[in-house]
Amino acid sequence: MAQRLIVIGGDAAGMSAASQARRRRGRDDLEIVVFERGHFTSYSACGIPYWISGLVPGPEQLIIRAPETFRKDFAMDVRIRHEVTAIDLERREVVARDLDHGGEVRERFDDLMYAAGAVPVKPPWASTDADGVFGMQTLDDGSALRDWLVTEPVPRRAVVIGGGYIGVEIAEALIERGLSVTLVEQADQPMSTVDGDMAELVADAMRGLGIKIRTGLRVTGLEQRDGRVSAVVTAEGPIPTDVVVLGLGVRPNASLAEAAGLPIGPTGGIRVDRRMRVPGLPGIWAAGDCVETLHRVSLMPVHVPLGTHANKQGRVAGINIGGGYATFTGVIGTAVTKVCDLEVGRTGLRERDATAAGFDFVSVVAESTTRAGYYPGARAMTVKLIAERPSGRLLGAQIVGWSEAAKRIDTLAVALWNGMTVDDMTALDLGYAPPYSPVWDPVLIAARKAVDALAAVDDR
Amino acid sequence: MAQRLIVIGGDAAGMSAASQARRRRGRDDLEIVVFERGHFTSYSACGIPYWISGLVPGPEQLIIRAPETFRKDFAMDVRIRHEVTAIDLERREVVARDLDHGGEVRERFDDLMYAAGAVPVKPPWASTDADGVFGMQTLDDGSALRDWLVTEPVPRRAVVIGGGYIGVEIAEALIERGLSVTLVEQADQPMSTVDGDMAELVADAMRGLGIKIRTGLRVTGLEQRDGRVSAVVTAEGPIPTDVVVLGLGVRPNASLAEAAGLPIGPTGGIRVDRRMRVPGLPGIWAAGDCVETLHRVSLMPVHVPLGTHANKQGRVAGINIGGGYATFTGVIGTAVTKVCDLEVGRTGLRERDATAAGFDFVSVVAESTTRAGYYPGARAMTVKLIAERPSGRLLGAQIVGWSEAAKRIDTLAVALWNGMTVDDMTALDLGYAPPYSPVWDPVLIAARKAVDALAAVDDR
Repeated sequence: MAQRLIVIGGDAAGMSAASQARRRRGRDDLEIVVFERGHFTSYSACGIPYWISGLVPGPEQLIIRAPETFRKDFAMDVRIRHEVTAIDLERREVVARDLDHGGEVRERFDDLMYAAGAVPVKPPWASTDADGVFGMQTLDDGSALRDWLVTEPVPRRAVVIGGGYIGVEIAEALIERGLSVTLVEQADQPMSTVDGDMAELVADAMRGLGIKIRTGLRVTGLEQRDGRVSAVVTAEGPIPTDVVVLGLGVRPNASLAEAAGLPIGPTGGIRVDRRMRVPGLPGIWAAGDCVETLHRVSLMPVHVPLGTHANKQGRVAGINIGGGYATFTGVIGTAVTKVCDLEVGRTGLRERDATAAGFDFVSVVAESTTRAGYYPGARAMTVKLIAERPSGRLLGAQIVGWSEAAKRIDTLAVALWNGMTVDDMTALDLGYAPPYSPVWDPVLIAARKAVDALAAVDDR
Repeated sequence: MAQRLIVIGGDAAGMSAASQARRRRGRDDLEIVVFERGHFTSYSACGIPYWISGLVPGPEQLIIRAPETFRKDFAMDVRIRHEVTAIDLERREVVARDLDHGGEVRERFDDLMYAAGAVPVKPPWASTDADGVFGMQTLDDGSALRDWLVTEPVPRRAVVIGGGYIGVEIAEALIERGLSVTLVEQADQPMSTVDGDMAELVADAMRGLGIKIRTGLRVTGLEQRDGRVSAVVTAEGPIPTDVVVLGLGVRPNASLAEAAGLPIGPTGGIRVDRRMRVPGLPGIWAAGDCVETLHRVSLMPVHVPLGTHANKQGRVAGINIGGGYATFTGVIGTAVTKVCDLEVGRTGLRERDATAAGFDFVSVVAESTTRAGYYPGARAMTVKLIAERPSGRLLGAQIVGWSEAAKRIDTLAVALWNGMTVDDMTALDLGYAPPYSPVWDPVLIAARKAVDALAAVDDR
C-alpha cells in the first residue's frame, strides 16, 4: 500500500516539497494530499504590488502552477478552500474543513509537511468591520484591493501603515495608480531593513515620487463613515483616507502546529533541523514562512519570510521525503527591492544587528558609479560594508543606487557566505568593462575603504 | 638622501604603484620618476571603442589623471614621450630617449617598477606603409583611427581582423558610425573567450546588427592603392575595404626586461612573486600587462592583460614599495563585455581550458530570465556552469543575456574564488525580488542543474 504525505499549505514551500517528493516517488509509492485554505496554489506573492500598480496585467501572470496542473501532471490530490483545523500526532491524522461547502474530513498521514506560511501582524485597532482596509499577503488580498480601487466612489486617498518592503512597494503602486498616498511608520524611518544612513536615501526617493512620509507616528485606530474607512487615527490626529493598507509585517502561522505539540522557537516559528524535520517527531516536516531558521552570521534563530527561502526549504524537505538527502543550512539575510527607480540591496547584519550579536566592527560607506564614469548612463551607487574587527571578516553589506545596482549585493552575499575578510575581497577578480563598472568595481572600492578603516582603528 | 623609484610605463599598473608608494612615503623619502612613451598617463584603454563609436564624446573623458596632476598633486617627475631603451641592473640605471626632442638621459634608481604593458600581436603581413591600418591598444591608436574616419574620401567599408573583445567592440563601434563592417576570424567563431555554444549566441547578435562575420578565414596580406589600404587578402580572395583594424590580441611588452635579465615565464610575461617582486632581483618590481600571473583554478601561469588586474597589481607593488604588505594571489579569468545589447560574462575555465588542465567535468546550460517572467522587461539569460567531477567544485561559468545579465558573473566569480561546489551553491542566499530575478535565481537554477548532471554521470 502506498504511503501518504499530507501537505498543509499549497504555496511555495508546500508545493516545492510535494513536487520534489513526487519526482522521487511515484503515485503507487506515495499518495500526496494537499490542503490549501485559499483559492490558489503556487503563486508569486511578491508580485502582488506590481499587479496593484498595473505593471503586471492580471493575477494569472502571478500563478506559477494552478491546482489543476498539480492534479494532472503531478498526480496530487489538491484540495483548495480546505482549512486544516487540527493535527492529531498520536493517530497521525489531520482534520480539514471545506470552507465553501461546509463539512469536515479526517485524513491519515505517514508524512506531514507543515507549510502554513505566515499571517499578517494585525494590532487590535486594525480589527474593523469597515470596508476599505486590506492586508497584503495573499492573492486574495490583492484581488480585494484591486476591486476596491474601482468601487464607486473611487478612492482618491490612501494610507499605508508600515514602511517595510510590502508597505513601500504598495505605496509606490498606489501612487502610480494616481492616488494621494501617505506612508505611516512608527519608527524613525521607513525601510529599516537597511541602516539609517542608507534608509534616508530611500525615503528621499519616495518623497520625490510624491509619497508623504509620516515617521515616528503611532496609529491608534481607524474611523469609518457609512461602513467605509474614513480616517487613520494617530497620536497626532486623524489622517483622512479612502483606503488603508496594512503592511506591518507577518508572523509565522504556527498556532495549529503549536496546538498539536510541534516545538516553537524564540521567533515564534516552528523549529526544524537542517533536513527540515521537526526535531523529535519522525515523519513531521515544516518549511517556509512558518519556520525559523539559523542566521549564519549572528548564529541566532531568525524568521525571514521570503519566497526564495520557502522554495529552497520546500525543495530540501521534498528531496528528503522522497528518500534523498538535502540540507538547508541557514540564511544570511539577503534581500533586494526596488523603490521607484531606486534599488536597495542588503545582506548579512545591519549595524544594529551586529551590535546586538555582540560584534565589534567598523562600517564604511563608499560612493561610486554603476558604470565607468565616462560611460553614458553611469549612475550613483552607494555601498556600505560592515566588517568585524580586528578580524576584518565581512558581517554585512548594503547597496543603494539607481539602475543596475541592487543585484550586485549577490557578489557581497557570496563573499559573506564564505566568510571572506574585506582584505581578501580587495583581491577578488570581478568582471570589468566600462558599461558595467569603473575599473575599480564599487565592491572593491568599498572593500579597500574597509581595510583602511580597520587599520585606522588599530592605529588608535 | 631620498631613495629613488623609477617607473617604466605611466598607465594603470605604473601609476597605481607610484601613487600607492607616494601615499606611504613623502617626497623627502622617495623620489619618483616616471617614463611614459606615449602622450598620456593613466587612461582607460577599455573605453576607446566607445570613443570611436561616439558614445563617449572625447578622449578627455578617458583620461583618469593627466601627467600634470601626478606632477603637482603627487610630487612625481613624470616624463611623457620618453622611451626607456635599456636597463642596467648592475649599475641600477635606466637609459631613456626623449622621443620629441631627441637625446638620452641616464637615471639611477633604488627601486624599479617595470610596467611597460603589452604590445599588439602583429603578423608579418600587417607591416605596411599604407594608410588606414590601425592597431587598437593606446589612446594614440584611437586618435589615429578617429581622424582617419573623417579623412576624405571618408571610409565606408571596414574590416576588423580578430574576434576577441577589442575586435568585437570595434566592429560594433564602426557599424554604429555607419560603416559597412566585416569581421574576419581565423577560428570557427568570434568571441572564443567563451565556449562555442555561448559564442554562437554572440555571433547571432552581431549578425543581427549587420556585421558580416567571416570565420575560419586566414588573412595573408593587405593591398593598397594610392598609399591607402584597399583590401584584405585572404585564403578565399580579397575583401575590399577602406580601413583595417587589427584586433589580434596583445603580448607582454617584455623584450626590454628580458634583455636586462628579468626572468620571463612560459606565457612570455615577466615572472613575479605575490608581492609583485621579480624573483631574485631585490628592488625590481613588475606589474600589469607585461607580467604573467597564476590562474587560481588551472594553477598554471597565464597572461591576462586587463586594466582591473593592472590596477590591483600596481597597487600591491606600490604598497610594498611604500613599506607596507600586500599580495596579489592570482586571477580566475573573469571578464564581461557588451556586444550590441547582448551581454557576455565569463569566469574560470572554459571547457577547453578544463580539458587542457586535466579536469574531469560536467557542463550544463540553463535558460532563465533576468527578472520574474511576469515582470515587464524580463529578458532571456543563459548560464553555463562547468563543474569538476566527482567533487562538484565549480571550475568555470559563462553568462550570455540581454540587459542586466553580464555582471551577475561576479556572483559566480566569488563562488569560484572560494572553491564552492555546485551543491553548496544551491543553498546560496541571493537577493530575490520580481524586478531582479525569478524566485529561483538563474545562478541557483544552473547550480541545481549541475548537481543533477553530476548525479546522472555517477549513475552511469
